Amino acid sequence: MAVLSGGGSGHEPMHGGFVGVGMLDAACPGAVFTSPTPEQMYEATKAVHSGSGVLYIVKNYSGDIMNFDMALDLAAADGIEVESVVIDDDVAVEDSLYTQGRRGVGTTVLAEKICGAAAEEGYDLKRLADLCRKVNENGRSMGMALTSCTVPHVGTPTFELGEDEMEIGIGIHGEPGRQRMKLKPADEVVEMLLEPIIADLPYKAGDEVLLFVNSMGGTPLIELYVVYRKAHQLCQAKGLKVVRNLIGPYITSLEMAGTSITLLRMDDELIRLWDAPVKTPALRWGN
Amino acid sequence: MAVLSGGGSGHEPMHGGFVGVGMLDAACPGAVFTSPTPEQMYEATKAVHSGSGVLYIVKNYSGDIMNFDMALDLAAADGIEVESVVIDDDVAVEDSLYTQGRRGVGTTVLAEKICGAAAEEGYDLKRLADLCRKVNENGRSMGMALTSCTVPHVGTPTFELGEDEMEIGIGIHGEPGRQRMKLKPADEVVEMLLEPIIADLPYKAGDEVLLFVNSMGGTPLIELYVVYRKAHQLCQAKGLKVVRNLIGPYITSLEMAGTSITLLRMDDELIRLWDAPVKTPALRWGN
Repeated sequence: MAVLSGGGSGHEPMHGGFVGVGMLDAACPGAVFTSPTPEQMYEATKAVHSGSGVLYIVKNYSGDIMNFDMALDLAAADGIEVESVVIDDDVAVEDSLYTQGRRGVGTTVLAEKICGAAAEEGYDLKRLADLCRKVNENGRSMGMALTSCTVPHVGTPTFELGEDEMEIGIGIHGEPGRQRMKLKPADEVVEMLLEPIIADLPYKAGDEVLLFVNSMGGTPLIELYVVYRKAHQLCQAKGLKVVRNLIGPYITSLEMAGTSITLLRMDDELIRLWDAPVKTPALRWGN
Repeated sequence: MAVLSGGGSGHEPMHGGFVGVGMLDAACPGAVFTSPTPEQMYEATKAVHSGSGVLYIVKNYSGDIMNFDMALDLAAADGIEVESVVIDDDVAVEDSLYTQGRRGVGTTVLAEKICGAAAEEGYDLKRLADLCRKVNENGRSMGMALTSCTVPHVGTPTFELGEDEMEIGIGIHGEPGRQRMKLKPADEVVEMLLEPIIADLPYKAGDEVLLFVNSMGGTPLIELYVVYRKAHQLCQAKGLKVVRNLIGPYITSLEMAGTSITLLRMDDELIRLWDAPVKTPALRWGN
C-alpha cells in the first residue's frame, strides 16, 4: 500500500520533506503555487505502487483536484487501483481564489503522517481511504498573516498589507481571508483563530485533540511557542484535552510571516498511528 | 559526563531544543538576547553533573563569558569539575557590540551535537574539552540579513535596513556586519559569505567538510535550499568534499530574515560523532 501526495512548491517542507518510512511514498512538487502535472503524478504512482493500490492525499485546490483526477484515470487504465481523498479543513472561507469549497491546509500534514503509519501497519486501500476521510472530518484549521509572500517569478508581493495590519483567515497562497485589521496582541490573535475552529466541528468538552501550531514560513519558533501557550490555555478552558501536539513550520507559504492553528479530534486509532515511528527529513521520531 | 550550554533567548531552537539524548544535558536560557545568570548555570550544573565533570559550551559574548566563568567558580567551590570552551567562529568581524574577539555562531550547534555524542561514548572531561576546541578550530561561519529583528521589550527594529538593502556579516543579535549594500541575487550573496569563510581557515582542496546552511528565523526552507545549492557548488569548485550537511533554522535571531553558512572540517572522529544517534526536539536521528 502506497501513499502519495503533491501540490505546488512554496509550502516546504510539505510535501517532499514528508517522504520516508511511515509517511509518504512519493511527493509530486509543481512549480511555486502551481499544481504538479497529471504525468508527474502518474509516473510517481507507477513508481511506488506495489500491486495493492495507492492513496492520493489531495489538498482542495481546483488545479490539484483536476490533475490528481486525471492521474487516477491514467493509473486505472494501467489497472492500478487508486483512491483519492480530498482535504478541506480551512474554516476561514467557503470558496476562494483557487478553490471550490474550503481550502486544504494544516490537516494535510496530519493526514499524511497518520495514513503513512496505517500503510506501514498493512491497512488495505479502502480502510486507508476511510481513515484519511476520518482525519479530514475531524480536523479544522485557520491561519493569519503579518506580511505577504512574493512568488519568485512574479517578483512583487501577492497582496499589500500595511506595517500595522494583519489578515485573519489567510490562505496558504496569500488568498484573502475573513478580514484585515490592525495588529493585536498575540493572545487575541490566537482567540480569533481558535474560536471559529472550535465552533465549526464543533469540538466539545471532553474531546481529545492534537493541537498543531504552524509557521507560514517567516515566523520563528519563539513566536510559535507564544501562540501555542495561549492556544493550549484556550483548549483547556473549553474542556478539550490536548493529548498530542506539533509546533513548527510544516506547511508554509514561502516567506510569509504568520501562523495557522489546526485541531484534530483524536481517538485510540489516531493516537496509535500518530505515535508510530516516522523517518522523514521533516518529521522524525520513534525507532 | 554532562554537557551544558546556554545564552540569551531569541535564538530558538538553540539551546533548549538541543537538550536530549546525544546532545545537551541542560540549557540555560536568559531573557531575549541577554545572558542567563551565573545562578541559573550553577543550579543546572548541580542538576546534571554525575561526579565526572561538566563541559560548558559558551558562545563568545562578553555577558555569557563572564557569567559562565562565575558559574564555574561556584561549581568548583562545590568540588564539581568544569571545563569551559568558548566558540568564536564568525569570520565577519573582529570584536563587536557585545564581543571581544570573534562572535560565536553556527559552529556552536555542531559542537553541541558532536560533544553530546562524545559524552554518550564516555569521553572524560579533558578529552571532551579538547574535542570541543577542535570543533571550534575547524569551524567558520558568516551570516547576512535582509531584515532586522525586533527585541520584544524594545518594540522597535534593532537596526534600519532599506527594502532594497542587505547587511553582509550580520551578528545574531543584529550587530553590524562588514557592509550594507543593495540586494543581489542569491548566488552572489552565497559567494560573499562562503569565500571569506573558506579563505579564513583556510579550507583546502581535499578537505572533507560539513556544510551547514542556517536560517536567521524569517527565511523559509525553500530559500535555504537555494543557498545550499550554490554553496555546495562552490565547495565542489574549490575541491572541498561535502561529506555531511545540515539545512534549517537552528541558531536564529528572532524574526530576522537572512541566512548564515558554517563550514566544519571533518575527520573520522567528527564524522563518527556527528552520525551518532541524537534525540532532541530540534535535532533527531538514529535509533
